[in-house]
Amino acid sequence: MDYTYAPGRNHLFVPGPVNIPDQVLRAMNRNNEDYRSPAVPALTKILLEDVKKIFKTTSGTPFLIPTTGTGAWESALTNTLSPGDRIVSFVIGQFSLLWVDQQQRLGFNVDVVESEWGAGANLEVLASKLAADTAHTIKAVCIVHNETATGVTNNLASVRKILDHYQHPALFLVDGVSSICALDFRMDEWGVDVALTGSQKALSLPTGMGIVCASPKAIEASQTAKSLRVFFDWKDYLKFYKMGTYWPYTPSIQLLYGLKAALDLIFEEGLDNVIARHNRLGTATRLAVEAWGLKNCTQKEEWFSDTVTAVVVPPYIDSSEIVRRGWKRYNLSLGLGLNKVAGKVFRIGHLGHVNDLQLLGCLAGVEMVLKDVGYPVKLGSGVAAACAYLQNNIPMIPSRI
Amino acid sequence: MDYTYAPGRNHLFVPGPVNIPDQVLRAMNRNNEDYRSPAVPALTKILLEDVKKIFKTTSGTPFLIPTTGTGAWESALTNTLSPGDRIVSFVIGQFSLLWVDQQQRLGFNVDVVESEWGAGANLEVLASKLAADTAHTIKAVCIVHNETATGVTNNLASVRKILDHYQHPALFLVDGVSSICALDFRMDEWGVDVALTGSQKALSLPTGMGIVCASPKAIEASQTAKSLRVFFDWKDYLKFYKMGTYWPYTPSIQLLYGLKAALDLIFEEGLDNVIARHNRLGTATRLAVEAWGLKNCTQKEEWFSDTVTAVVVPPYIDSSEIVRRGWKRYNLSLGLGLNKVAGKVFRIGHLGHVNDLQLLGCLAGVEMVLKDVGYPVKLGSGVAAACAYLQNNIPMIPSRI
Amino acid sequence: MDYTYAPGRNHLFVPGPVNIPDQVLRAMNRNNEDYRSPAVPALTKILLEDVKKIFKTTSGTPFLIPTTGTGAWESALTNTLSPGDRIVSFVIGQFSLLWVDQQQRLGFNVDVVESEWGAGANLEVLASKLAADTAHTIKAVCIVHNETATGVTNNLASVRKILDHYQHPALFLVDGVSSICALDFRMDEWGVDVALTGSQKALSLPTGMGIVCASPKAIEASQTAKSLRVFFDWKDYLKFYKMGTYWPYTPSIQLLYGLKAALDLIFEEGLDNVIARHNRLGTATRLAVEAWGLKNCTQKEEWFSDTVTAVVVPPYIDSSEIVRRGWKRYNLSLGLGLNKVAGKVFRIGHLGHVNDLQLLGCLAGVEMVLKDVGYPVKLGSGVAAACAYLQNNIPMIPSRI
Amino acid sequence: MDYTYAPGRNHLFVPGPVNIPDQVLRAMNRNNEDYRSPAVPALTKILLEDVKKIFKTTSGTPFLIPTTGTGAWESALTNTLSPGDRIVSFVIGQFSLLWVDQQQRLGFNVDVVESEWGAGANLEVLASKLAADTAHTIKAVCIVHNETATGVTNNLASVRKILDHYQHPALFLVDGVSSICALDFRMDEWGVDVALTGSQKALSLPTGMGIVCASPKAIEASQTAKSLRVFFDWKDYLKFYKMGTYWPYTPSIQLLYGLKAALDLIFEEGLDNVIARHNRLGTATRLAVEAWGLKNCTQKEEWFSDTVTAVVVPPYIDSSEIVRRGWKRYNLSLGLGLNKVAGKVFRIGHLGHVNDLQLLGCLAGVEMVLKDVGYPVKLGSGVAAACAYLQNNIPMIPSRI
Repeated sequence: MDYTYAPGRNHLFVPGPVNIPDQVLRAMNRNNEDYRSPAVPALTKILLEDVKKIFKTTSGTPFLIPTTGTGAWESALTNTLSPGDRIVSFVIGQFSLLWVDQQQRLGFNVDVVESEWGAGANLEVLASKLAADTAHTIKAVCIVHNETATGVTNNLASVRKILDHYQHPALFLVDGVSSICALDFRMDEWGVDVALTGSQKALSLPTGMGIVCASPKAIEASQTAKSLRVFFDWKDYLKFYKMGTYWPYTPSIQLLYGLKAALDLIFEEGLDNVIARHNRLGTATRLAVEAWGLKNCTQKEEWFSDTVTAVVVPPYIDSSEIVRRGWKRYNLSLGLGLNKVAGKVFRIGHLGHVNDLQLLGCLAGVEMVLKDVGYPVKLGSGVAAACAYLQNNIPMIPSRI
Repeated sequence: MDYTYAPGRNHLFVPGPVNIPDQVLRAMNRNNEDYRSPAVPALTKILLEDVKKIFKTTSGTPFLIPTTGTGAWESALTNTLSPGDRIVSFVIGQFSLLWVDQQQRLGFNVDVVESEWGAGANLEVLASKLAADTAHTIKAVCIVHNETATGVTNNLASVRKILDHYQHPALFLVDGVSSICALDFRMDEWGVDVALTGSQKALSLPTGMGIVCASPKAIEASQTAKSLRVFFDWKDYLKFYKMGTYWPYTPSIQLLYGLKAALDLIFEEGLDNVIARHNRLGTATRLAVEAWGLKNCTQKEEWFSDTVTAVVVPPYIDSSEIVRRGWKRYNLSLGLGLNKVAGKVFRIGHLGHVNDLQLLGCLAGVEMVLKDVGYPVKLGSGVAAACAYLQNNIPMIPSRI
Repeated sequence: MDYTYAPGRNHLFVPGPVNIPDQVLRAMNRNNEDYRSPAVPALTKILLEDVKKIFKTTSGTPFLIPTTGTGAWESALTNTLSPGDRIVSFVIGQFSLLWVDQQQRLGFNVDVVESEWGAGANLEVLASKLAADTAHTIKAVCIVHNETATGVTNNLASVRKILDHYQHPALFLVDGVSSICALDFRMDEWGVDVALTGSQKALSLPTGMGIVCASPKAIEASQTAKSLRVFFDWKDYLKFYKMGTYWPYTPSIQLLYGLKAALDLIFEEGLDNVIARHNRLGTATRLAVEAWGLKNCTQKEEWFSDTVTAVVVPPYIDSSEIVRRGWKRYNLSLGLGLNKVAGKVFRIGHLGHVNDLQLLGCLAGVEMVLKDVGYPVKLGSGVAAACAYLQNNIPMIPSRI
Repeated sequence: MDYTYAPGRNHLFVPGPVNIPDQVLRAMNRNNEDYRSPAVPALTKILLEDVKKIFKTTSGTPFLIPTTGTGAWESALTNTLSPGDRIVSFVIGQFSLLWVDQQQRLGFNVDVVESEWGAGANLEVLASKLAADTAHTIKAVCIVHNETATGVTNNLASVRKILDHYQHPALFLVDGVSSICALDFRMDEWGVDVALTGSQKALSLPTGMGIVCASPKAIEASQTAKSLRVFFDWKDYLKFYKMGTYWPYTPSIQLLYGLKAALDLIFEEGLDNVIARHNRLGTATRLAVEAWGLKNCTQKEEWFSDTVTAVVVPPYIDSSEIVRRGWKRYNLSLGLGLNKVAGKVFRIGHLGHVNDLQLLGCLAGVEMVLKDVGYPVKLGSGVAAACAYLQNNIPMIPSRI
């Protein structure tokens, strides 16, 4: 049985992996190449410069690792820390939970700061921990910029302010998996030491490339960090960077050309325009949710995520049924509620290469699904609310003016 | 300047060329092959059998001609008629007009039966002409099944009834360019002698293949027809069919594999389900138009087209501005009004590989465009009307139940 | 049964359709687009300028017709001539024969000048006919630049010289199907009135685009030519050129982007370098044939074709068996002998996007096939002869120096 | 500067990444999908069954890890061993050296057994170590099946015999990166505990999937192994296998479909036929090397590799110049000599989706390069020797008989 066939195009609104632009698919539709020829290093050199722009860094050192976000996490941790090191980390949903789990399994001493799911990281607790840590036993603060499970965006500028306030030298490690290239992220300005994302999120590529960027301070830390590592070891990369061949092991030729195409599209649109588009789509989605009379899982406006909206369903509805039905009847892919919010929320991912009409098709689909599962939605209400906002806010397409 | 870039996917709602399924794009993504090897004839043999199903014929002979719909018209006419032959032909919009123009330029003696644009073919006039033609000077009746310019579907079963009523031997030639694979079409049952379509319409392929199907009577006519022809001559095809090599000149290898994939998808969905889907999308579109308070260019329900809806705009609006704005602001491609209805209608094509949520995205886009150009539409109203209908009528996706 | 699978890549050495560059495949791997949006005319405008360069014309008017070479022939003839017009045409092999057949079936009065297959067009007969035609009853001279069936290249400069010598105003119509983009061709310099090629030949695209270029004199002739035509009528194109929308009917979006990519590659390599590469590959092939002790079907060096070599086999071998075996055992596609030379020659096409090592793989394959069918070839002999020449003549790849 | 353009197709003869079949490229040319829908687990389930066949195991548990061969190594080691564990490992070339380096950096106590580069693993030393190890302090024997740097294939059956002879319980860990799917490999029969390969080698996919297969004994070992690991931890996979969702983190949708297509091609050809083809291509290459008067880096016939041949050049030639020139002049990609044999050998990879004529094109290219760099090769000699063997040994293509 081929589950994949259905008339028309799948509306892919999970918060990753996301829709790949046709230009990127084309760029990736190619045979393998000898990665030791002059062509691949030449391409890599350009990519390593270009990719820094999505982190808004000039001093960072990027690594394009053949792995996923989970591997990128491991790269960030094992290159900068030693087993037993004390770190502060926040649990605010499933992905931050998984990162903490990784931190613990890798042997770090994790001060876990939990929030209710739907709330942001508790930065007051961070402040008090840093205040108390005059001996600087805390080696790193680890935080997920955007918690994909609950649609919560943490305030990284505040984290930096707190670190600075206490003049604390802890490394500042950020999971930007569902934020970078979609939300405002400023590595240098916010003094982030390691930032990372995955290719299949806002970059709109296939899965398979973990993109990690390290500050000079992080690079320095990596020279003494004692965590065992080989595949994820930055040292090997840096050695090959110096030699100009760039790759300690075979990269995916296809993902390299794909990354080039993806970055070119982002720069053509303008990174800040991309971020503005995500804000517009996020706002439209939230207006629709409100019009449906449903609650956003995100508790406060300051934490609203522009890449994913987690929608709380009434207790008499199983949110998994919404996802199932979207897929089975409308060729619509929505995100499940995970762990603590399983059955309670469904998620609309609105990140990557996606536009307003695609979102409106999705919202119309959600309305029909809601009706299917017994929620008394007024059909068209969410779309109307979204359109009322969008019609005033969508810019002309620059290349077509 | 690259006009093509815009974030997200283009909503392609012109009535052709239409969206190509990914499966078909994949099938076509291939190098050339020697078309004289055993592989290409083997594939062709299968295609010639399979393609008959979309015409609902068992006795017809199909030709897969490297040309467009215009060329397919020419193939139908020149193979069955001789210069000076009298034919009856209907003008009900731009495409039937162009066919009549071709008929005249090819030297036929055309009895043109005109209708107002928005009305169907005047079959009463046909009846009276046939009644009067006891000498059988009329050699062919030519009719466009679905006039793409006005969204009018003609009743082919009635044409056959009239021909039979007068026991008139005229050939029955049908342009099915925007109908076959989308609307109910029954070559054998309706005694159609030549039916034709183009690859870029409901088959959802690229442009480049004119698909013509000839009844035994048409094949017989082709043996004596005196119109000069070589490229379009069925004789050359039939000669190569007999030899088992099939091709008098080089076919597009890519389109052959693409056609295989396209037909496979249609048969997987079920041709009648495909037709039902078009009816559903057409109905939803018409409900939206009504909700917007706009008029359908098609004058009577019996002529409503399930593949394209021509929407009449108020006199104070230029419909071209709607199309322009859709493209420039919303990455939405709509059809222009052509010739007599230029500036007065815009068209929503809803044919080929397209589904409900894509249509709803389009409808939401149209609403915003309407507002942009000063029409006092209630945002969400069309989508709501369409959803109310669709939510009760969309079947579960069979492969996913 | 899927005939297409075999380990490794097919060595495609038929004289068309030829190997498509990966860059072109990528460019064509795309969804349909609205051809009435501003994007497609903008692209077309560029293409119409660029394509003139492969004809070496500045004054010509090109037409990109959705058809094959056979259709391009018909376009050239019907737009410039009227039924009954006297034309001189040469038969030197299967393709020139087919063109003459078309000319006759389209109602022209054809003076056929035949040569032995393997010889070039008999220009002495042409001279005497023109000399005798003081009344200028000859309206056109039609000649195939490169006869694909026998590997014979005619001398077009001589044809022009003869026409000029007799100050004869006949139109000069050239089939450049297997020459343009591969052999030296100079439309303006040689005063060619209509030149044409097909996308699947040296342009290295899929089949489906007939590219026809008309001189001002040919355009003028088209205004009075009385041959019936619609699909192939230049008038319709010229009308849309003037309007800036360019297309009288739907073009293949994919082939337009493919043509752009194909031309870009040709211009990147340099058209004259492309022609030199074809000469190099042709020379290498002929040296191999000589080393095998086999005869070239082309009778004199002046007619040697740089795009295809027809190899004569000894009488005790059926050349079809060579082609069959190449395909069945070595995944090698060679050209059959056609018509008069069926069973007597096989053909090696060496045109389009192909390089030296690919050719050498093909030649090694031919050697093994020859041995298979009982010809006492010295294995390696042809490759050695080709290599000895090539090793002295292959230039460095400019982008890699 | 775009290094990639050159007329014709690159002859890619590095020992990985290798040529990707068009069928696989097509299968991978697709948008992302929701990996939590029922479709992806259904596909994964099939893949996990199918992939066992290339290891010739029924009892093994495969893992499809988004990583490279280096990551697959790490997965094999960290899941089965604890820091400080004693292992025996062989250095016979660059890749076995890198694996030993990894073993040491991951904290294992490595008994390194070195051979001269060009020789196989010294199994006598293994025997004596096992004989002496009555306390069973040796926890694992790690061996590279095929050393890609020197073209040496180790005898795994002998390793198993020695382990059995001494009834030693050490785990048997095998790097099959450049062997599996190309050389005879029998996981169950040879009692291999962990075997691994990378997608870009004989499977002929892009880089990005490390395929690891664990015996029941290895799975058992993983439950107590104390090496820290998260990304590479089998436990997470096994948990999701049990749940039927299969993926602890996001897989590459494209590589999953690509793997399906790649396996289908291998099974269509027949795994043993694939292995026989590699033997044929390897033999042909060695015969060519001999004909050129050059030495194989592999010291004895028993170690000859059928996936890569390392060719020793005379001392007055720098082998890097051969590789450079192949790329710059002939669009031929050969493998460099690495580390100890840098400058002394160049490598011809003949693995994956490649056939006889492609190899012959490569060999002809190598001959010209050799002449270019001053080696007095007789042009055609290697091709002749290879052809003489191949012409007697290439089977008919089964689908074309």
